[in-house]
Amino acid sequence: IEIYHIDFKGSLNIVYEAIEEADFLAIDGEFSVMGQEPDSSISFLILVLFCAKERYQKLKKHSMDFLLFQFGLCSFKYNYTESKYVMKSFNFYVFPKPFNRTSPDIKFVCQSSSIDFLASQGFDFNKVFCDGIAYLNKEEERQLREQYEEKRSQTNGSGTPSFISPNAAKGPVIIPEEHRNFIDKVVEKVEDLSKEEKGTIEVEPCTGFQRKLLYQTLNWKYPKGIHVETLETEKKERYLVISKVDEEERKRKEQQKQEKEKEELNDAVGFSKVIHAISKSGKLVVGHNMLLDVMHTIHQFYCSLPEDLNDFKEVTLCVFPRLLDTKLMASTHPFKDIINNTSLAELEKRLKEAPFKSLLVESAEGFPRYDTASEQLHEAGYDAYITGLCFISMANFLVGSFLSPPKLHVSASSNLIEPFFNK
Amino acid sequence: IEIYHIDFKGSLNIVYEAIEEADFLAIDGEFSVMGQEPDSSISFLILVLFCAKERYQKLKKHSMDFLLFQFGLCSFKYNYTESKYVMKSFNFYVFPKPFNRTSPDIKFVCQSSSIDFLASQGFDFNKVFCDGIAYLNKEEERQLREQYEEKRSQTNGSGTPSFISPNAAKGPVIIPEEHRNFIDKVVEKVEDLSKEEKGTIEVEPCTGFQRKLLYQTLNWKYPKGIHVETLETEKKERYLVISKVDEEERKRKEQQKQEKEKEELNDAVGFSKVIHAISKSGKLVVGHNMLLDVMHTIHQFYCSLPEDLNDFKEVTLCVFPRLLDTKLMASTHPFKDIINNTSLAELEKRLKEAPFKSLLVESAEGFPRYDTASEQLHEAGYDAYITGLCFISMANFLVGSFLSPPKLHVSASSNLIEPFFNK
Repeated sequence: IEIYHIDFKGSLNIVYEAIEEADFLAIDGEFSVMGQEPDSSISFLILVLFCAKERYQKLKKHSMDFLLFQFGLCSFKYNYTESKYVMKSFNFYVFPKPFNRTSPDIKFVCQSSSIDFLASQGFDFNKVFCDGIAYLNKEEERQLREQYEEKRSQTNGSGTPSFISPNAAKGPVIIPEEHRNFIDKVVEKVEDLSKEEKGTIEVEPCTGFQRKLLYQTLNWKYPKGIHVETLETEKKERYLVISKVDEEERKRKEQQKQEKEKEELNDAVGFSKVIHAISKSGKLVVGHNMLLDVMHTIHQFYCSLPEDLNDFKEVTLCVFPRLLDTKLMASTHPFKDIINNTSLAELEKRLKEAPFKSLLVESAEGFPRYDTASEQLHEAGYDAYITGLCFISMANFLVGSFLSPPKLHVSASSNLIEPFFNK
Repeated sequence: IEIYHIDFKGSLNIVYEAIEEADFLAIDGEFSVMGQEPDSSISFLILVLFCAKERYQKLKKHSMDFLLFQFGLCSFKYNYTESKYVMKSFNFYVFPKPFNRTSPDIKFVCQSSSIDFLASQGFDFNKVFCDGIAYLNKEEERQLREQYEEKRSQTNGSGTPSFISPNAAKGPVIIPEEHRNFIDKVVEKVEDLSKEEKGTIEVEPCTGFQRKLLYQTLNWKYPKGIHVETLETEKKERYLVISKVDEEERKRKEQQKQEKEKEELNDAVGFSKVIHAISKSGKLVVGHNMLLDVMHTIHQFYCSLPEDLNDFKEVTLCVFPRLLDTKLMASTHPFKDIINNTSLAELEKRLKEAPFKSLLVESAEGFPRYDTASEQLHEAGYDAYITGLCFISMANFLVGSFLSPPKLHVSASSNLIEPFFNK
């Protein structure tokens, strides 16, 4: 199923459930810049993790300014009673939507050939740029959390909890001539308001300087009982809402505000939660030629990539405790003598023929079916699905050739696939 | 009117006509990265052109990796009988679609805040990435033209004009064992074909190496009467079409091919033709804070920006002989004492009030009307329109204050606006 910004929160439990129940997961990413799949290169994760220091630094330098904007996740669970795999496939559109005016403004590189290729495949770019799910890495999340906490502690410390400005004046405010008329008019209305039981005034959108003057003036004139709040119109113009409140209502409003902030923080962390859940599950994660996917996943949703390869290895093991690259697997004994071409599309075709056995894999109820006959390559969810199929075929082959009589199903924690793990 | 790839060719004459009849033109560009409009900076074209060498080099270094993807053009023509301006507004979506496999693959930078801002304004990114009009600068156009000419001269020079490969073997071709079966099968079919009066065989998609083997083999076996052509399926797979032809038909096919190539070249030059037409017309071109617009227009549609500021000045005068920046105009005597804020939106509001006169400007028939009351800022065509309005208001003011009795219309070539030209 395709998941955008708007239905992300509602779908999150379905995603969590799929991760929790899975025997293993397959992932794939689509980028704003595509490389040629280096068919006979040494780009496999395991090699890089253990030897190719320079290659890591080169990739880090040249590829991290791309954007991973579509993340495919496919969960596979074996159903023993029916002897088949049940899979759930997700296609997440992600975009680094700036959360507020202090949040980092990401610059990323696009390549006209990649964009043109995706366009020719019917890719809808608005799904990314308009409807993409936001995300923060751990560091950005921490910063945002601190911002909120700082704001809250300032508020609680002062005698006038509703006034956010930390520079609230303690005496009368000096108002420049040209703004005096505007400020006086608002103060007049607030004076009337303060005599009412309760009520609210909306001030027309004005400049940041005018808002500051109003905050300060009202803070000084009405230290209690008046609540001032900045809101935004649909056009992103900021305006003030001034309310007369009693102590009880003030507390309720503070509570509401804190809950709203928690919600906002939640939304801002967004897609990164899916990565946290995968990480926490400790499940086997398979990918095809997955080095760039892993690097970008960590970079965008977890933390900036470390300079040093050893540190990267540590972070990777922390985020994905068990990784397996199907391209690496297909290039290793006993498969390297059976399989000529290890590109994903060719591998999938090859594994449909002898000596490999046909598979029974079905979509879970409510999830779309994929048809491997009508190729949908380069949609991340589909590529993750195919990668999962390849893994099952090869794992079954291992079981069949080393155990006799062959089992029909190989567990993801079997010792037989151990040698292919990133350990 | 909005113009995409698909209706570009059909609309070109309407655009040419608008440029030809115009008294002056206004332009504006939208970018994948937006800067803050530097309200009180020295970023005006004229300053840069004459003094700020370092600023030019800085902009060139830091801003040329953005993409100008929406180009607004607005033509203004004065109707003397009805004493009003008639305007035609165009909104071009442009994208550097790679023309073929040897054409340059442009990398460009996007910024999440800019993308998010455009998304919040309802911008449709598919209009750029899927339906954008292609373009080439002069250098790329020259290269492509040379590619075609080289191919043609090779073809005409050899005895077998239909065989493109310059390395066509003169003797039997050595075919590797694994491809012999495939080649033999095709040759068998061609042998049958060669005995027919006429006919065509389509060979299933195959690798570039196999196509080369076929070209060479058929060239050697059938030096005359057989025409081989490479075509592409919708999935971009390449396949060969082999036809039996007589001399007359061969000539017709060559002719067809040349016309198709001319058409392709035409399509590839694409939007750049509009810039050539503006340039050729020599009309006054106004823009607001237009330095980046001018730099990008030249960079994307004319030539790579020169290192040296003096060379840039020369190129600019060559592409746009008469430029006028309304932000610069508004910041100069006699306007600088009347106008406080020279941002486009504020300037437009200010010029609606005294001492400026109200304007009569109407859309030409068949062109959409813009309503300055419901702002549509940041759509390139609309911004160009507003810029044109500002120019007319200020130009009329100049006429009114220096001539008595005031004329209702100031010609774009009047001496009064001369001081504001980029000369």
